[in-house]
This record gives sequence, C-alpha cells and structure tokens, in this order.
Amino acid sequence: MKYFKGLLLIVLSFYLLLYLFCSVNICYAKSPQIEQWGVFEITLKGPSSRNPFTDIQLSAVFTKNNLTIKTFGFYDGNGIYRIRFMPESTGEWHYITSSNCSELNEIHGNFIVIAPAKINHGPVRVQGMYSFSYADGTVYRPIGTTAYAWIHQGDKLAEQTLQTLAVSPFNKLRMTVFPKHYEWNNNEPALYPYTGTPPSIWDLKRFNPEFFQNLEHRVQQLGDLGIEADIILFHPYDKGHWGFDRMPPQADDLYLRYIIARLSAYHNVWWSIANEYDYLKEKKPSDWDRFFQIVQSNDPYGHLRSIHNGSIIYNNTLPWVSHASIQNGSAVEDYARAILYRDVYRKPVIFDEVKYEGNIPQRWGNISAQEMVKRFWEGTIAGTFVGHSECFLDSHDIIWWAKGGVLRGKSVERIAFLKKILEDSPSEGLEPIDKWQNCPFAGKRGYYYLGYFGESKPSEWLFSLYKAELKAGMKFKVEVIDTWNMTITPVDTVFELNKPSSYYVDDKNGRSVPLPSKPFIALRIRRIP
Amino acid sequence: MKYFKGLLLIVLSFYLLLYLFCSVNICYAKSPQIEQWGVFEITLKGPSSRNPFTDIQLSAVFTKNNLTIKTFGFYDGNGIYRIRFMPESTGEWHYITSSNCSELNEIHGNFIVIAPAKINHGPVRVQGMYSFSYADGTVYRPIGTTAYAWIHQGDKLAEQTLQTLAVSPFNKLRMTVFPKHYEWNNNEPALYPYTGTPPSIWDLKRFNPEFFQNLEHRVQQLGDLGIEADIILFHPYDKGHWGFDRMPPQADDLYLRYIIARLSAYHNVWWSIANEYDYLKEKKPSDWDRFFQIVQSNDPYGHLRSIHNGSIIYNNTLPWVSHASIQNGSAVEDYARAILYRDVYRKPVIFDEVKYEGNIPQRWGNISAQEMVKRFWEGTIAGTFVGHSECFLDSHDIIWWAKGGVLRGKSVERIAFLKKILEDSPSEGLEPIDKWQNCPFAGKRGYYYLGYFGESKPSEWLFSLYKAELKAGMKFKVEVIDTWNMTITPVDTVFELNKPSSYYVDDKNGRSVPLPSKPFIALRIRRIP
Repeated sequence: MKYFKGLLLIVLSFYLLLYLFCSVNICYAKSPQIEQWGVFEITLKGPSSRNPFTDIQLSAVFTKNNLTIKTFGFYDGNGIYRIRFMPESTGEWHYITSSNCSELNEIHGNFIVIAPAKINHGPVRVQGMYSFSYADGTVYRPIGTTAYAWIHQGDKLAEQTLQTLAVSPFNKLRMTVFPKHYEWNNNEPALYPYTGTPPSIWDLKRFNPEFFQNLEHRVQQLGDLGIEADIILFHPYDKGHWGFDRMPPQADDLYLRYIIARLSAYHNVWWSIANEYDYLKEKKPSDWDRFFQIVQSNDPYGHLRSIHNGSIIYNNTLPWVSHASIQNGSAVEDYARAILYRDVYRKPVIFDEVKYEGNIPQRWGNISAQEMVKRFWEGTIAGTFVGHSECFLDSHDIIWWAKGGVLRGKSVERIAFLKKILEDSPSEGLEPIDKWQNCPFAGKRGYYYLGYFGESKPSEWLFSLYKAELKAGMKFKVEVIDTWNMTITPVDTVFELNKPSSYYVDDKNGRSVPLPSKPFIALRIRRIP
Repeated sequence: MKYFKGLLLIVLSFYLLLYLFCSVNICYAKSPQIEQWGVFEITLKGPSSRNPFTDIQLSAVFTKNNLTIKTFGFYDGNGIYRIRFMPESTGEWHYITSSNCSELNEIHGNFIVIAPAKINHGPVRVQGMYSFSYADGTVYRPIGTTAYAWIHQGDKLAEQTLQTLAVSPFNKLRMTVFPKHYEWNNNEPALYPYTGTPPSIWDLKRFNPEFFQNLEHRVQQLGDLGIEADIILFHPYDKGHWGFDRMPPQADDLYLRYIIARLSAYHNVWWSIANEYDYLKEKKPSDWDRFFQIVQSNDPYGHLRSIHNGSIIYNNTLPWVSHASIQNGSAVEDYARAILYRDVYRKPVIFDEVKYEGNIPQRWGNISAQEMVKRFWEGTIAGTFVGHSECFLDSHDIIWWAKGGVLRGKSVERIAFLKKILEDSPSEGLEPIDKWQNCPFAGKRGYYYLGYFGESKPSEWLFSLYKAELKAGMKFKVEVIDTWNMTITPVDTVFELNKPSSYYVDDKNGRSVPLPSKPFIALRIRRIP
C-alpha cells in the first residue's frame, strides 16, 4: 500500500511537471486555433530603420494538404510586421514566411482552423449570374447604405453610427478609405493615411499605421454586425486638398498593395476601386484597369470588385469586375430601365446610388421617402439591388451619407419591410418573369411572382401570368402588399390556372385580384404545392 | 516644199500607225477608270476542274504610292475568277495578283480612280462616339427597315420592293443572305447558295455563283438608291430545313471568306454577323467571336460590324463591334431606357428591332403606327437610332418584314417627316441634354434642343433648359411639332434667357410655350444667332 502511494506520488508529480512545462514552453508549439474565415495573424519583430514600408519585402505561404496560398505582409509601425490570412477551409494549416530581411525569413508554424462562429458566413461571392451568396452557401441579398467618411469622424460618432447600423436593415456599407473634403465635410480627420504635415505635405512612401488600424477596427466591427464593408479605394472628394486623389502611379500602387495586405483577410471586405471614378480628373482610363489588376492579383481570396461611376460608366463587362456598381439618378424609377444593365453586363447589378432621401438643395440629395422606397421596389422586380442613403441638413453638418450618426428618413423601415419579404423569396434570386414586355413581375417562374405597380393606383389586377413553366390546374395564393404602409393582406381566393394561350395564362374563372386603388402596391403570388 | 510634204506624210503615217497599234494592242495597257468607292474588278480565266472554291488561292495587292491593300479573289463559276477592290482614294493604282495557280499568278495592271458620282459618298463609318458619317464626311443618320428575305422572292417582287424603297425614307435595309423558313415564309427560294439537292443535301465546299450574283445585284441596286445593305450573315430561321444554321465550322468559315471576297468592295455593305444570334442553338458563344474576327481580318475596308440579339445581348463592348444592333421590345418606349445602352457601350446604338407595326398575332408584330412613330421619337431624343418594319397579314403571305413588296402602314410617312427634321439637325448627332434626369431633350447644348412628350398631353411647357452652355440674354425660337399630324408650328415669342440657377435656366419673363394638349408633341428650340 505504501509502495502504491509512492508510485501515485511519482506519477502525479510527473503530470504536474508535464503540465507546468507545457504551460510555459511547449505550448508555444501547440497549434493555435482560428475559425474558418477568421483573421489569422502572424506577428513578427523586425527592423524599424530606413523605410520598412518600401525596403522590406514580406510574404507567407500557407498550405493545407496540396492547397497553397501566398499572402503579403505589411509593416505596422514600431518594428512590428504582420501577415494576415483568412483560411477558407477547416483543418490543420502550415505557414512559412519569406522576406529579404533574415529576421523575418523562413519563420514557420502550424494552426488549426475550426468551424466559424454562427455570424461568420465567409466572404460574399457571386452566385449564378445575377445574385450573391456567402461562401457557406447562405443567400446574401445586398441592402446597402452609404456613409462615406464615417471612420474619419472620431470614435464617438463612429460608435453611434454602429449603433444605428445594428438596428437597421442594412447589410452593406459604402465607405471611403481616404477622408472626404466636400460641402458639409470641412472637418479634418483625426488621422491621416500618411506621415507628413497636413493638409498636403505627405511622405507617400510612409503610411501611418494608426490610420489603418482604425480602418481595420471599423471593418471588423461591421463584420461583427453582419455588414459588408464596401471599401472605396479612391474618390474625387479631395480636389487636391490633401492630394490623395492625385498621387503619382507609384504611390497609388504602393497604397493598393499596402491596404490589400492589411485588409484582405477580413471576410466582409468588398473592393470598390473608386467612387465616381470618372471625376478623378488626374487619372487616365488605363489607371483603373491597372488598379483592378493589382487588386485582383494581390488579394488571395478574390473579394468582390467593382467601380462606381459618375457620368461615364466603366466597362463592367471586363473580367476583373465581379458586379456592376451603378450610379444612375433615374434607372430605378422604372424596372424596365434597371433590367437593361443586367442584360448588358450579365453580372449582378447594384444601384449603389439612386439619389438620396433628404432635403439638401442638390437634386441628387432630396428625393422623398416614397420615391426612395419605390426605387427599391422597382430595382427589386428588375432582379437588381438598390442602395440607400440620406442627406438631411443638420446644424452640425452631420449628414448620414457622409458622416453617419443617426437615420432620420422614413424610407429605412420600409426598406426593412422589403428585406423581410425578400428573406422569404427564392434563394436563387428574383428573375424578371417576362423581360422587355412591360411585365412588372420578378420571381421564379412557376413558383413565385413578386409584382409592383409603382405610382399607378389600380383597383384590380386581372390574374394573368406569363405562361412559361405554367400549366392548367396549377393553384396560386395571392397577397396584396402595401409597400408604404407595410401591410401584407392575403387574398381569400385560390386562383387556378386555365389552359395557357400564346403568351399568358389566366385564372380558369377569369378572376381578378381586388386592389386598394392606392400607389405603391405590390403582389406576392405563390404556388400552392 | 516637196521634201516637207514627204516628211509630213511620214509623220502622219507614223501617228496613224501608232493610233492603230494602240487601239488594238497597247490600249490594253491604257489605265481604265473607276470612281472612288466604286467596284474595280479584275476578271481572269482559270481552271474549272477539281474544286476551284477550295483548291485555288487567289488574292491581289493594290498599291498607290506607299498605300498597300490586300484583297481576296473568288471563283465565279465557268472558269471565271474575280478580284474586287473598292478604292478609297483617287489617283493611279497598281495591282498584282498572287495565286497557287500559275495562270492566275502575278497578273498586274494599273487603273485610275476618279472622283465618285454624286450619289456615292463611300462607306458609312462611326463618327465621334455615337454617330455615323459617310467616308466623304456627309452625315449619315440611319433610318432603317427590314425585309429579311427579299432577295429570295424572285425578280418581280424584288423589283417592286426596290420601287417601294425608292420613294421611302429608308436608307438602310436589314436582309439575310440565306433564305428564310418561318411562318408565312414557306416558299423555297429560286436560288440556293450551294450546289446540291434541295432542301438539305448540299456540297458545302461548292458555292452556287448564281445565288451570289443575285445577292450582289440587289446590293448594287440598293447602293444606287443610297440605301445601306445591312447584310445578315447567319440567322436562325432555318431550323435545319436547309441546315445553313448548323453548318460545321469549316463550312461557316469558308462561307464567310467567300462572301467577304465577293461583297466587301460594295461601299454600302454593313456586316450583321447574325440575326437573333442566340437562337442559333447549334453555335457556341466563341463561334460569334471567331466570325467577327474573320470578317474583321478579311474585309480590307472595315465595313461596319454588328450582331443582333434575340434575348441575350452580345458583348457589344468588344473591339470588333462597331455599333450595337439591339432588339428590345420595350427600350424605345422610353428614351431614358434607350439612353442606357449608349452609356454602357459608348458606341452608336441602333434599335434594329423594336417590334413591328402590323396585325399578326405575335406580340412583336402588331404594334400600332402611333406606337412605332413614338418609338422613333423616343429613340431619337435618346441619341440613338430606330429601325422600322411592318407585319400586315396578306392573302399571299407577302409581308414586308420578310419578303418586301409594298408598305401599308401609317408610320412610314411620319418617319419620313422625322427624317426631314433630322436633316436640319446638328451634324454631330443629337446628345441627350441632361441624361439620367428625366429630361426629354436631345440636341447640342447651347444651340439646338429637340424635345418630345410622348403620350402625355401637356397644355404648356415652361421654357426651362438645362443650364450647360447657356447664359443670360441668349435668345431662342421655338417650334411646336405635331409628330403624328406632321405639322411644324412656329411660336411667335422670342424667348430670352434669365440668369441660370443651380441646374436650369428659364425665360427671363418666366414664359411658357403653349401646347395643344395632344399626344405625340415635340418641340424644336433653336438659338437665334
């Protein structure tokens, strides 16, 4: 028995020692864990002399079985170098660094990628031809808004903006990297992207890591809210004030490589090459092609890429454009206009600027809430996506469209209402039912039809659908949707199809759907299995 | 004196001999004359054994000073080979042939190119970004119609078609090379493009020269009337009946090279790669790219190239597409829809199919004359071009859209009225005055404004123009145009501009233009110098 006690003590001591040893030493070699589509970060100490932004080359190769992904590192100030990686699959990954600096070269390690948290569905991808889904297959229907320079307004306002977004319907936010200089935007930002002397003397070879840390923090916070960050890499709202709109090509390219190295591991990043790109008068058309190519070749994850127009639309058929990001002040007044872009590009179409709800004098910033909601619906039945923002004058010049803050308009809750309806629509997206024929319905032929009558005030709608995928005897239920008053009223009648004629098929008893003779009425028609 | 007489006789005899000699022999070397943009033709005798269409290679190089143009010859049956050339400048040209057949090789000669006849303005080119002009600089505004298979209906009907066209406003005709098999088009053609046994056994390596001689004759006749031949190289209205819609790639390519060799020297040729190309289900998308490239590389004159869609629009941004040839049943119901194609393609846009005036059951073939005329006007104020055709049922199935014959609709004379108005409009073409803002005016800012109110029936129009290129004190005269009743009524008032506001500028006395409260009213506003 004594002998047994002694043995027990020895064994326990061994385990204790093992535990202590492990916790202080060996555990460094134990693989860390990171969730799929999370940000895995390698932090390294290195030289801070000379110019680490340009003199040091740093990258890492990440491997899992026969999968190999190369990603670039970046200098984060104070002798700290980082390499970020977004693993796209679970399992054990290995990495090895490569650098022209021996301290940073050939550092390697392993890590384990586990299943993602519930909120993280991975990056958004194009699904089919005109729709989107997250990498995990969950459907993504963009309902975006714009607050261009919200990250430049200090922490207090930024936190308020996040609180506003948290309870809003929006799942995408258009935002600029560079600060904004414009009417109602005359405040200098707290941080600048380069070292130098504001407003316009910059060392374009030395970034300000703090600026980018703030940007990343905000992108991360958006991600935590399930909001995609549609990051605008260049914009014209500078006009030489800081000069970020007219840097030389080498500076542009260095900036792109730097921001891609920093940000591409965040799953909720979208790249918008520029806003109103054609208003950056110092750039040549070929610059935009080059920027797209730099983004495409440096971002290992293929985040979505677009470019937003002023009055000249970029050639969105080019292969490096993932989706069209359109500004057009009148296209979504009429679904038949909106459809045309779809046909031409054969890619998803997001109308990221359709004029803004508000009361500023500019004609692009004073449409009514009714008009904004109507544009969302017209865009929806065109099989496209529409973006929101607001321009309400404010005594402190805090306008949502530029700075964030709070939302004041009346469109937002109606957009939330639309979003709910869409959540219950076919995951493949809404296809125009009978395009080029003035048919105000989109959906999935044979199953689901969402129609919208805009400003017209019909008192009834003769039940009649385009005949494709339909046959006699099929049964449908109908709901009348008041898109402004946010009501959904089921119609008692079950409609049953007659034999199709040349183009259309009606209810077998020729019945109509009674409508309330009001504007902004929609119909949802679903097949009864 | 006697001596002198003798000398004179000798000299005269010498000249006489020279003349006789020249007239029978040397005059073959005297350079023939041909007008600029005319068809210069080299005719050669060669072998007719084996297969001259595939075994004999024949081309010629035409030179003038340091200009060199290579063009291909073709076999025209009965041992006759031809090489055609359209000289694009006056002066003395030289040619030398090249062939793998010694009889046809290294034949050379000269010819003189003189100024063209008054009717011949040369081929149509793209002018600027959205317009056309002839090679001699004369503005060309396409006003087209369609009679797909008119060349296949025998001489009598073809001659009637030409008589109809001669007194019509049309300056472009869409027409197919291959015959058409379709509803109301069940007659076999008089001629087939290949040797073989109708309807479907063909030697796709042996063309029928007679078929192509007829085609050329018709193209020439159209040219004599000042009408561009928009030649449709492939179409789906065959469905395997003859099988010209489903030939193997080698046959397609041989056919293209043959028809280009035959036809490209005709100045009024336009190449339409296909009609409703996406309905040719046996073709791959890459086939269309290849066809464009064959046409581009084999036609030495760069005639206009387009491709006409069914429901999927070809990528008209590709470099080998000279202009967009659009089918869309609803785009030109609304100028703001039509404008979108312009913006996207940044090329001239011709709506070659906008549904047809007529009374057939198909919904694409029974719009009213009012609707057709409206579509022409909406397309015009979008800065685009619209095409006409007619589908009126006929006891002998002679429908203009397919077979030609006579025109019965009521739109043609209104289209002629519009054409007259356009002849007096800026030669640069009509630019949308304030695009994406629901502004129904096109023209030349500061000088010329053509507005159109469609089906709305305004009783007045507040004189108010988009401010670009305008300043206070400028004076304008206004005419009210009834586009249906074809009247132009000058307004007595001279309007004088106020100071521009943010976007617009009104008359200094706030005056309006009285309008007749009728639909289809247009306004022409011209600056008084």
